[in-house]
Amino acid sequence: MPTVTFHPAGRSATVPVGASLLDAAAAAGVILTAPCGGEGVCGECRARVTSGTVERVARGGLSPEEITQGWVLACSSRVIGDAGIEVPAEKPVGPAQIITAGVEPASGRAAGGRAATGEPRIVKRAMKVPAPVLGQSQSDLDRLAHAVRGSGGPGTLVAGLDTLRELAAALRESDGHVTVSITPPDSDGCAEVVRIEPGDATGCQVGLAIDVGTTTCAVSLVDLVRQHVLGTAADYNGQLARGADVISRINFARTPERLAELRGLVLNTINGLIGDLCAHHAVEPTQIDNAAMAGNTTMIHLLLGLNPDFIRLEPYTPTVNRTPPLRGGDVGLTMNPAGLVLFAPGVGSYVGGDITAGLLSTALARPNEDVRLFLDIGTNGEVVVGNGEWLMACAASAGPAFEGSGVRCGMRASHGAIERVRIDAATGNVVINVIGGGRPTGICGSGMIDLLAELWEAGLLDPAGKLNPAAGSDRIGPAPGGGRNLACTVVPAENSKTGAAISLDERDIQNLLRTKAAVYSACAIMLKSVGLDFDAIKEVCVAGGFGRFLDLEKSIRIGLLPDLPLERFTYLGNSALSGATAMLCHPQARECVNEIARRITYLELNVDPAYMSEYTAALFLPHTDLNRFPTVKAALAARSCRSVGPPWPT
Amino acid sequence: MPTVTFHPAGRSATVPVGASLLDAAAAAGVILTAPCGGEGVCGECRARVTSGTVERVARGGLSPEEITQGWVLACSSRVIGDAGIEVPAEKPVGPAQIITAGVEPASGRAAGGRAATGEPRIVKRAMKVPAPVLGQSQSDLDRLAHAVRGSGGPGTLVAGLDTLRELAAALRESDGHVTVSITPPDSDGCAEVVRIEPGDATGCQVGLAIDVGTTTCAVSLVDLVRQHVLGTAADYNGQLARGADVISRINFARTPERLAELRGLVLNTINGLIGDLCAHHAVEPTQIDNAAMAGNTTMIHLLLGLNPDFIRLEPYTPTVNRTPPLRGGDVGLTMNPAGLVLFAPGVGSYVGGDITAGLLSTALARPNEDVRLFLDIGTNGEVVVGNGEWLMACAASAGPAFEGSGVRCGMRASHGAIERVRIDAATGNVVINVIGGGRPTGICGSGMIDLLAELWEAGLLDPAGKLNPAAGSDRIGPAPGGGRNLACTVVPAENSKTGAAISLDERDIQNLLRTKAAVYSACAIMLKSVGLDFDAIKEVCVAGGFGRFLDLEKSIRIGLLPDLPLERFTYLGNSALSGATAMLCHPQARECVNEIARRITYLELNVDPAYMSEYTAALFLPHTDLNRFPTVKAALAARSCRSVGPPWPT
Repeated sequence: MPTVTFHPAGRSATVPVGASLLDAAAAAGVILTAPCGGEGVCGECRARVTSGTVERVARGGLSPEEITQGWVLACSSRVIGDAGIEVPAEKPVGPAQIITAGVEPASGRAAGGRAATGEPRIVKRAMKVPAPVLGQSQSDLDRLAHAVRGSGGPGTLVAGLDTLRELAAALRESDGHVTVSITPPDSDGCAEVVRIEPGDATGCQVGLAIDVGTTTCAVSLVDLVRQHVLGTAADYNGQLARGADVISRINFARTPERLAELRGLVLNTINGLIGDLCAHHAVEPTQIDNAAMAGNTTMIHLLLGLNPDFIRLEPYTPTVNRTPPLRGGDVGLTMNPAGLVLFAPGVGSYVGGDITAGLLSTALARPNEDVRLFLDIGTNGEVVVGNGEWLMACAASAGPAFEGSGVRCGMRASHGAIERVRIDAATGNVVINVIGGGRPTGICGSGMIDLLAELWEAGLLDPAGKLNPAAGSDRIGPAPGGGRNLACTVVPAENSKTGAAISLDERDIQNLLRTKAAVYSACAIMLKSVGLDFDAIKEVCVAGGFGRFLDLEKSIRIGLLPDLPLERFTYLGNSALSGATAMLCHPQARECVNEIARRITYLELNVDPAYMSEYTAALFLPHTDLNRFPTVKAALAARSCRSVGPPWPT
Repeated sequence: MPTVTFHPAGRSATVPVGASLLDAAAAAGVILTAPCGGEGVCGECRARVTSGTVERVARGGLSPEEITQGWVLACSSRVIGDAGIEVPAEKPVGPAQIITAGVEPASGRAAGGRAATGEPRIVKRAMKVPAPVLGQSQSDLDRLAHAVRGSGGPGTLVAGLDTLRELAAALRESDGHVTVSITPPDSDGCAEVVRIEPGDATGCQVGLAIDVGTTTCAVSLVDLVRQHVLGTAADYNGQLARGADVISRINFARTPERLAELRGLVLNTINGLIGDLCAHHAVEPTQIDNAAMAGNTTMIHLLLGLNPDFIRLEPYTPTVNRTPPLRGGDVGLTMNPAGLVLFAPGVGSYVGGDITAGLLSTALARPNEDVRLFLDIGTNGEVVVGNGEWLMACAASAGPAFEGSGVRCGMRASHGAIERVRIDAATGNVVINVIGGGRPTGICGSGMIDLLAELWEAGLLDPAGKLNPAAGSDRIGPAPGGGRNLACTVVPAENSKTGAAISLDERDIQNLLRTKAAVYSACAIMLKSVGLDFDAIKEVCVAGGFGRFLDLEKSIRIGLLPDLPLERFTYLGNSALSGATAMLCHPQARECVNEIARRITYLELNVDPAYMSEYTAALFLPHTDLNRFPTVKAALAARSCRSVGPPWPT
């Protein structure tokens, strides 16, 4: 079998003839992201053949010049013999990182105004189990059940095998003093022991809140006794190597083996984060009895190994919207295998548990009459409008640009990310803020929004998203990789951490414009469908992984958010994660999220013929109809903004 | 590492220096039974070193002559270099075999007189699930739950991951016509789908009844729709290689690895039987949703991987008596992993679910005032006395002799076993019946009882169990393997199927006497403890794997059973298996067996000082006190029976 060696990493893999270069890279442990799922469309998995030859199946978007230089698309090239392959500098995927600590879960809001009792799904009870007596022929489980009843616990006790296997030793280790983790009793008064520990261990109970994002996964380790988030870690979803958006992933998962691969990739990501958090906080993962998970419908299907195909096909039917509670071991999480995993309920194929959980952090979860708009700008854009009485939701194919995927120097909001950008109008100097300080490795969502707005305001970018070489800035030049693309250098190579310049090219900008257009037009269509105007909106709740400092004014200026008074906006951050945290900590939040899911009416955007023209009109900065952005229009006039060309093509 | 080769099989294993010969034999796939669990006590694992040398750790019961000839105990010999080992002809372990077919489960009796509805634990429902509709955003599970409700099923439906993974395909394969296997709803009206099949599959539902015996495991495949036993298969418990009785097994299981080994061995045996039955009846094992299991407390602990150590140590406390229902996959059975396994409840460490299940086949399960005695003569002897109001139980360490273990030519009641023996008083000729006809391979329990009684009556055996060479029979001679032991040849080598003579030696006879003494004395002590006499017993129910034709008269003659009118005896056969079958088929049987377990008072025999003298007195044929066996005494007098010597030592 031929051997393929990838440079500069120097890693090799021996693969059968006919294997794709993408698979060879995966086998060699070299990450080549393929946002389109390996369909030969996006051109992101470019690599250059430096020795040997490969068979080209498709040329994708490669120019004749690039083809001459040896560039191929890894997904569309087959191994036919030994080869040396040079891959562009890998994407700056930041390491998993404890990005927040010491945060209180948003209990009051989630609990719908009622007092939070803080009882998690599985509770601990400490007790003394009397020693066995000769002739009474009581089993260990009988004695434990008796002690549980005596401590005011449920009347009947069952146990799974893992617990039964520990029982004899645990009862004898601490002279009968034990702590049991038990499910709440069913209406017959029967509960299950899922774990037994010697001694009194009620002072320590931790749980997991998990956000399974298409681009990024985040996990919080939560102290359930003190109702306190111990730490949060996030990382790119390992499935990124197999497609950037849900449709690419569904296409990739067309065989059981590939479905199993995607399941393994996301479990690896999440379990890696759990492992990091547990190590950092000295928690033994098997001590974790409770987890709450929020994710979009496709992500939950892939994580559970459920066939996602019918999510993609009309009439878009998932296997499950409200996933029943499952065991940690069945799900495959690094936790007590008998522990419970709760899932935020989904509403449909494209409005999932990430949205219902996200709504827990808003006033839409509470009874009130004010109409609010909820936007989740993740890999997909989901929009919800409604009040405490009714809710309507739709999904827009926004793309993961603001999460750092589909943008060459994009990255999630972690250490090394440029989170704020300002261009000095007088000098043209670029001032940046980097998360964690030091030299930057890439740009996160909030930085990209700043950059688009500042470039436009500085006259370096036209409303259609084309860079203006005539503006005379030395930051604008040909994009790396060739072609007719222009790029704007944000940080020159000598100042970046990777040694490569951090820049935004016109293809990146188009991706960002498509995302913001999808979100804005979905909001517009949604409001139109219920006969409301943006002005009727009391509050706009914005969720998404932009970073810590979303500049609302600039978000409006680029046309991502509607032009409303700034005080009407609330930035929620990762609301899916905070919703999962609330579900983990508060029984009321679990009730509330189910009630939200029942209340939501799902609007199929694809069937609305007006959507495409709304979308096309929103592909410009800020919009073809400037009257929709009166503040921006006024500012343009007042400040005689140096924007180049007409605001939209004539 | 040295290589050890076992003859005559010619199988080799390469093992580390210091490994026991027993482990080397296991590694080579050669079965050497070690009834004492490898403690160097029983002398059953004898083998002869023919080349190389091994290190002797203990000499066990070997004579100096045997040691000179190269005989060693495999359990107590360590490998120090290459060696050739000759093992005696392997025990005639019969293959798994369909020994019964077409039997109705004993439903009427088990159901306590009430009409049996025949509803198994998990039921099937067939229905049509309407196709999904665009815009309704119902998941597959939602639509299924709706259809289940529409068919009169439970109001709320949950599903495990295995079922969810099949759901999308199953709903689309037969145009929405599906059959679901669902648990009965809990009191909240919530049920779980454990399996989904396309089309109407309600006509076929099979279940497993499993008897986990210390010596023998038996499995019945039961048609739950027609309430009919399709077939039964039995085989020796694979754990026999690691000890013959429960105490040897518990001693063996002293490390987690060894416990796991025992678990694997018995699962192999049971799953082998399930596989045979399924193949024979063209049933896919994953279609089996229900199983009911009966076994003694130690067997259930070992099967489930529960630490059995505290069963052996005072105050004899098992982890569990009433094992909660478990999933097939958790137990490790070859069936639907999400299917349910029910366990017959145990009462104490030495009165287990085999006894409570066994009682289901007797009138003790029904309300009535007649006092009955229930004897289970398996590897342990358990005795229950009582009526429909009260029950008292005790355990005697009977030993597995009548199941064919601890008796050189003993075997279970399967093809090739001598099941009946008659010695012609005039000619001395031995007449035998062989199960399945043809040449015999060994003797089963009923054959051994016949043989003891006939030998004694023919004057070839004295009451203490010594063979009488002076009787002039050419069948009596030195036992194979040497020593001062005598043996009686039942079938000469040329007439046996194995090519080796089938004989009973004095050590075999002592094992049989110990077993019958343990059972009889336990009955006597038990009755004394409740102030009753044997005469007060309305019915004696005898369970055990003797075979099809237990000769009650001969069982009384050897002192195994009390001397009562023959019409008071009922032979139940494998009552644990028929009890498990009843539990599988009838909800009433499940209620009844739990009620029986609650009613039983457990008597600890070891703490009764009178037990040892009762036992010693019962070690003779039939007993030191002939007045307890008036029929036998009268027969001896009337027929001037040619028994040799005084009936007991003077």
